[in-house]
Amino acid sequence: MSTAAARLRFRDARIEMAHGAGGKASRRLLEGLIAPLLLGAAAQPLGDAAHLALDGARIAITADSFVVKPLRFPGGSIGELAVNGTVNDLAVSGARAEALVVTYVIEAGLATEILEAETRAIAEAASRAGVAIVGGDTKVVEHGKADGLYLTTAGIGRPIPGVALSAASVRPGDAVILSGPVGDHGVTILLARGELDLEADLRSDTRAVAPFVEALAAAAAPGLRWMRDPTRGGVATSLNELARDAGLGVWLEEDRVPVRDAVRGACELLGLDPLHIANEGQFLAVVAAEWADRAVAALVAAGCAEAAIVGHIVEQPAATVLGSTSYGGTRVIDMLVGDPLPRIC
Amino acid sequence: MSTAAARLRFRDARIEMAHGAGGKASRRLLEGLIAPLLLGAAAQPLGDAAHLALDGARIAITADSFVVKPLRFPGGSIGELAVNGTVNDLAVSGARAEALVVTYVIEAGLATEILEAETRAIAEAASRAGVAIVGGDTKVVEHGKADGLYLTTAGIGRPIPGVALSAASVRPGDAVILSGPVGDHGVTILLARGELDLEADLRSDTRAVAPFVEALAAAAAPGLRWMRDPTRGGVATSLNELARDAGLGVWLEEDRVPVRDAVRGACELLGLDPLHIANEGQFLAVVAAEWADRAVAALVAAGCAEAAIVGHIVEQPAATVLGSTSYGGTRVIDMLVGDPLPRIC
Repeated sequence: MSTAAARLRFRDARIEMAHGAGGKASRRLLEGLIAPLLLGAAAQPLGDAAHLALDGARIAITADSFVVKPLRFPGGSIGELAVNGTVNDLAVSGARAEALVVTYVIEAGLATEILEAETRAIAEAASRAGVAIVGGDTKVVEHGKADGLYLTTAGIGRPIPGVALSAASVRPGDAVILSGPVGDHGVTILLARGELDLEADLRSDTRAVAPFVEALAAAAAPGLRWMRDPTRGGVATSLNELARDAGLGVWLEEDRVPVRDAVRGACELLGLDPLHIANEGQFLAVVAAEWADRAVAALVAAGCAEAAIVGHIVEQPAATVLGSTSYGGTRVIDMLVGDPLPRIC
Repeated sequence: MSTAAARLRFRDARIEMAHGAGGKASRRLLEGLIAPLLLGAAAQPLGDAAHLALDGARIAITADSFVVKPLRFPGGSIGELAVNGTVNDLAVSGARAEALVVTYVIEAGLATEILEAETRAIAEAASRAGVAIVGGDTKVVEHGKADGLYLTTAGIGRPIPGVALSAASVRPGDAVILSGPVGDHGVTILLARGELDLEADLRSDTRAVAPFVEALAAAAAPGLRWMRDPTRGGVATSLNELARDAGLGVWLEEDRVPVRDAVRGACELLGLDPLHIANEGQFLAVVAAEWADRAVAALVAAGCAEAAIVGHIVEQPAATVLGSTSYGGTRVIDMLVGDPLPRIC
């Protein structure tokens, strides 16, 4: 790769929190600096996991760092998130997680009981997801750095037979399916910080989506075109990435997107859009129209009670997400801009 | 794995810098807490990379986080270190690195030029090592956290044909081979911090050792029993791990261990043992006696001018490293205790 010659579009003088939020600024950093240098000129759009051939086998690989604050929150913790997040990145790329490696960056002074609790959370989440932890690393940094604990997980997996995903295979008329309610994770983290005078009976949705992806694939693999877990930046950002990568439009019927009252209430108070809030246990799928009902039925049967067709793919306006409500309103749904919820994963 | 029942031997109340130094405290944390919980009761001694079967292929996988301070130092930088470190972990496990994933934890406020320089360093080191970077992740944490930049790399590779390594295959009489001078990296980092009134014409030895491992394997694979890159904790710690894992002793002829004058001088002034200082471009190999001369000749021909037989394996005292000098002195060489050089990788 010719790195010296790479012309970089990223012009911000410094890195700010928004560059880590998963929205527009993250995309500019990734596409304007990191990807051109690391992945070379022929870089394809970055999906959730890379698929490659190794010694005759097809394997998928992915990695994520986790810096969520606080370390524990209703419904989960950083250790559980670190396993589920990587298992999910593999799942929505169409792969079954087989093995994980975990690295710790620990702040000196961290209570051993916290490290033990998070290590148990990692082990239990891996056990639930049926994935082996095969190695890792531990570093310690001075007190005052690292907020207790940062984790990084990398995972490898095998492609799910019959599943071949790409934004390029998406066609007008395809259905957009969502596995369940949005915004639970991001709003839970926000409330868990205790900086707002708000309480709600809400838990993170962190879970491995692999069983649901498997059920979907078993029922509708020939019609399955694309998947994504809408983490940082939320459903709005994932659908904008889809629209852009496919060169098509997404028509989202907003009334059909399940949002819990507690999430909707908190978002209204804070001026946030639930579609921009991170999820850690939901996924989006694009399925050919004739497979869509079977796909939803399979998800519901597998335990995603609120799985639904929430929209469809349109020819125009290309590279755009439009939202409509039953009252007849229509709006452009943009990617996340700025960082209303820092460090949610 | 039954995590609830795991009895943990690690009893320290808090994590301290020494737990990240790669020596005795690191080993206690790993073996007393992390490995029992994550890897289950049947956990084997942790090598530098795990080898597993996936879809009929044999693959190796490893991951490391990098928190070196300062980010740039004579002879290298965190980006280069992050690539070489993971390539080397694969190499000394007997595998060829094929693909890497890289995650960034960036401190808000980091100058983009630093991020760009490190991303170029990653790309260039990967290019030199012939390994593709296929994905990654970026997180941003608040100003004051993360010291600018932490990196994590995970790598996958394929076994080098004909190479099968394990401490259990080591036999009394085997030769201990060292690829070159020790301590360059650790002392370079120490001096680069500018906290000591010391200067020296010294550079980090960071490099991919893969070409040398390949040369060694090509010349002496049938006699090659064990390899390790003596990073944190240095040669003394790696040899103690070997002695313990093999249930045998190591006899080290200390006069034969190459140490540059600048490293020896700094260590004498600071009361450090060069054998405890981290290296980032050297490796140790145990080779059957009848293959040892061929192995050293191959390393020298490949560019490790100072490669040498520095010791041999003995039956007794088991699990111990003894050092001898030409003056007739003998001493027990222990693992690193404490953390004289924090955050050297």
